Amino acid sequence: MKIVKEFENLESRSIGFVPTMGALHDGHRELLKRGRAENELLVLSIFVNPTQFLEGEDFSKYPRTLEEDIKIAKEIGVDILFLPDVETLYSGDEVSILAPKIRGFILEGKGRVGHFNGVLQVVLKLFNIVKPHKAYFGKKDAQQLILIESMVKNLFLDIEIVPVDIVRDFDGVALSSRNRYLSKEERKLAIKIPKALTTGETLLKSGNSLQSTKRAMLSALEDLEIGYVEIRDRNLNLLQKFEKENTIILIAVKVGKTRLIDNIWL
Amino acid sequence: MKIVKEFENLESRSIGFVPTMGALHDGHRELLKRGRAENELLVLSIFVNPTQFLEGEDFSKYPRTLEEDIKIAKEIGVDILFLPDVETLYSGDEVSILAPKIRGFILEGKGRVGHFNGVLQVVLKLFNIVKPHKAYFGKKDAQQLILIESMVKNLFLDIEIVPVDIVRDFDGVALSSRNRYLSKEERKLAIKIPKALTTGETLLKSGNSLQSTKRAMLSALEDLEIGYVEIRDRNLNLLQKFEKENTIILIAVKVGKTRLIDNIWL
Repeated sequence: MKIVKEFENLESRSIGFVPTMGALHDGHRELLKRGRAENELLVLSIFVNPTQFLEGEDFSKYPRTLEEDIKIAKEIGVDILFLPDVETLYSGDEVSILAPKIRGFILEGKGRVGHFNGVLQVVLKLFNIVKPHKAYFGKKDAQQLILIESMVKNLFLDIEIVPVDIVRDFDGVALSSRNRYLSKEERKLAIKIPKALTTGETLLKSGNSLQSTKRAMLSALEDLEIGYVEIRDRNLNLLQKFEKENTIILIAVKVGKTRLIDNIWL
Repeated sequence: MKIVKEFENLESRSIGFVPTMGALHDGHRELLKRGRAENELLVLSIFVNPTQFLEGEDFSKYPRTLEEDIKIAKEIGVDILFLPDVETLYSGDEVSILAPKIRGFILEGKGRVGHFNGVLQVVLKLFNIVKPHKAYFGKKDAQQLILIESMVKNLFLDIEIVPVDIVRDFDGVALSSRNRYLSKEERKLAIKIPKALTTGETLLKSGNSLQSTKRAMLSALEDLEIGYVEIRDRNLNLLQKFEKENTIILIAVKVGKTRLIDNIWL
């Protein structure tokens, strides 16, 4: 495996790309495995992107576990590990990206205004540097995934975005780099999140209205500080009723000081 | 010459690209000639881009002279004339581009807030569709050219931006699609613009200060409604003093109802 701080694509081989902020867990492992299986060359980037953290968020505290990450990358057979410097990716008074005016500023984008501008900006830069044929994103960050798919379409990028299923721990909690912030008690509370999603799934599939389903989910999440519980279509637009193969239930809650998100695609 | 509304790049040949809003004049002809000479395949696009016109500007009145344009394109040997529809380039709630926060909102961007967001957005889309190796822009729209160069750098696009010198009419007035709006009297007044630039050049080169040069240029432009007269470096930053090979003098004036811009690179 080559570890580089600068990347120049001179490849004729098919490239799979997994952009991450590091602190790799089994969710990332799934992305990498898919990328390994489907491409001749597999590129992993690790870059904790400052522009997607808002003032006061956990940028400086975000978990950084490079040695562990390198082990995982080697184990899965990553060909190139790209570790760009901030100075390589960003300069002074520069062109930036504005997330879709509606869908970029609801859900995660409502509490974190500008977050997705930063996400799209860095992903676009990385795409243009790495020039992958396929790029892999987890469904856990559903809104991010959907906005990146939009960007690819809106900007006519020649990249296939591959959504990868959420990986869950033994207790159902979705894997997340931020899970390591949770105390034992908080971890127990977090189990309510996947349970609420399952409740939502059952209710919708058995014909309940969006409203009553949402109510039941909210009560399943009691004791947690709720950011939102939303049922939307797969383009993040509002739904009138459950549409099979076109529905996502999204949850954001705070468990102690840690904000967790999860979702289910129905 | 092929005329297409949809474009798919399947080319292995080197591509030169001249994106325009049509109403082609001898300035565009220069861009096309350079593009023809330097590339195997030459692509011209004509698209009057709605997102770069502000509310109340001349979008609907912007000159459209497709038949003439096609003649010129054929004459110069354009291979592909790309005439996208608005619906092909734009969709609903989409990712957009924000011009550099400082340099995108001075000069032309000050009077036309958001204009360069639209310019960069459409140019980025067109670049990603056409995938040129070289793209040609006139120095007349100096700020546009410089911001596009920034975009290419900031977003790591693999495109060489080729700046092409301003083409002037017999009387020194820079060619512009908007010149056709001028009455005979207005046209005579417009001659003051290149004259003021020459005055500026002479004064700076003979050691005068920026301030006194600017004063002299302002009085050379009397009777015109002045938007700005500015002396900046080639990255559009403020200058303390004249720097050879790193200075631009930029002028914007209104002649009657028509806004004209011009500049000189020193």
